[in-house]
Amino acid sequence: MARTPTGAAVLQPEVTQAITDAVLQELAEQGYGRLSMEAVAKRAGVGKSALYRRWRSKQEMVDAVVTEFSVSRAAEADTGSLRGDLRETMHALIGWLTHPMFSRILPDLVAESARNPEWSRTAREYIGATRREAGEVMLRRAIARGELPGDLDLEMALDALAAPIYWRLVVRQAPPGPDYVDRLVAYALRALGAQDA
Amino acid sequence: MARTPTGAAVLQPEVTQAITDAVLQELAEQGYGRLSMEAVAKRAGVGKSALYRRWRSKQEMVDAVVTEFSVSRAAEADTGSLRGDLRETMHALIGWLTHPMFSRILPDLVAESARNPEWSRTAREYIGATRREAGEVMLRRAIARGELPGDLDLEMALDALAAPIYWRLVVRQAPPGPDYVDRLVAYALRALGAQDA
Repeated sequence: MARTPTGAAVLQPEVTQAITDAVLQELAEQGYGRLSMEAVAKRAGVGKSALYRRWRSKQEMVDAVVTEFSVSRAAEADTGSLRGDLRETMHALIGWLTHPMFSRILPDLVAESARNPEWSRTAREYIGATRREAGEVMLRRAIARGELPGDLDLEMALDALAAPIYWRLVVRQAPPGPDYVDRLVAYALRALGAQDA
Repeated sequence: MARTPTGAAVLQPEVTQAITDAVLQELAEQGYGRLSMEAVAKRAGVGKSALYRRWRSKQEMVDAVVTEFSVSRAAEADTGSLRGDLRETMHALIGWLTHPMFSRILPDLVAESARNPEWSRTAREYIGATRREAGEVMLRRAIARGELPGDLDLEMALDALAAPIYWRLVVRQAPPGPDYVDRLVAYALRALGAQDA
């Protein structure tokens, strides 16, 4: 019988969860620049060694925690129609970007990476890549169903689906209004050249 | 003859310019949270009183300087066609959002307002309002020329024109590619339901 790997054996899931929560809370309250391993350990009720057993550095820890949080909230909409898929995707994006804690974390990480372009390119690529792959699968299904033109500019389309939500809710902080998602979906369907626009 | 107002007489334009440059540099390097009136005064080579003669507080100073910087860079495109106007507007937006100094300032102000939603709503409204008004004038001219449907959802359209640029260049930090503006304009024309799409 295979032995449990020594490294993995010491990582208790409930400790990982406590640390993860502490990282997100510290990021929301202090921002990346002021976040310290000490404060995370203290808040999680563990020693610093518990952190370093899991990640080699502050950046690696933040990357992993933020990626895990984001990817777990990505929608995998498959309703059978592009309109339905877009509606579910938009709702999931709004939930992600306006999450009480995460809505304070993401703009700070963006600001951090604007000050230091080398910072956490990995994290942004991980977070972005997973969501963009899900979006691409959704659009390719719609192309296969004949709902979208086969020569769709996928690169532009993927930028343009998430962007208005971030711009309005995070940058402009303008209230979305009750029919916001329907209007956004109508706009997107036309932008994509959908049959059902 | 009207007297020069006492307050205005002491505000030398070259001093205002030196302070303005210092505010932008301090914002880019330190961020809003760490910016101090002392550091701005020192960098501009003036006393703190020169700052307080112009603005009552740090927030008011940053509001004024950032608004002035942004508004001076808003395009007032009037080329005679929607496609031409969009191309000029997109180029101006890219220039604004990727400006070496401002591209480090705006994400920090967004992060600051995410931590403190009361912060500088005025500034965001000033910056945003002026640009949105220019955008609305451009779209209304296109409607008047019959290039756009009269029932265009202006609110969604204005969000969707600026948003993909911010998303791609600032949040994702993905390179735009040589034909980026043309692809973006093509996408926007279709999204707006333009005749020339």
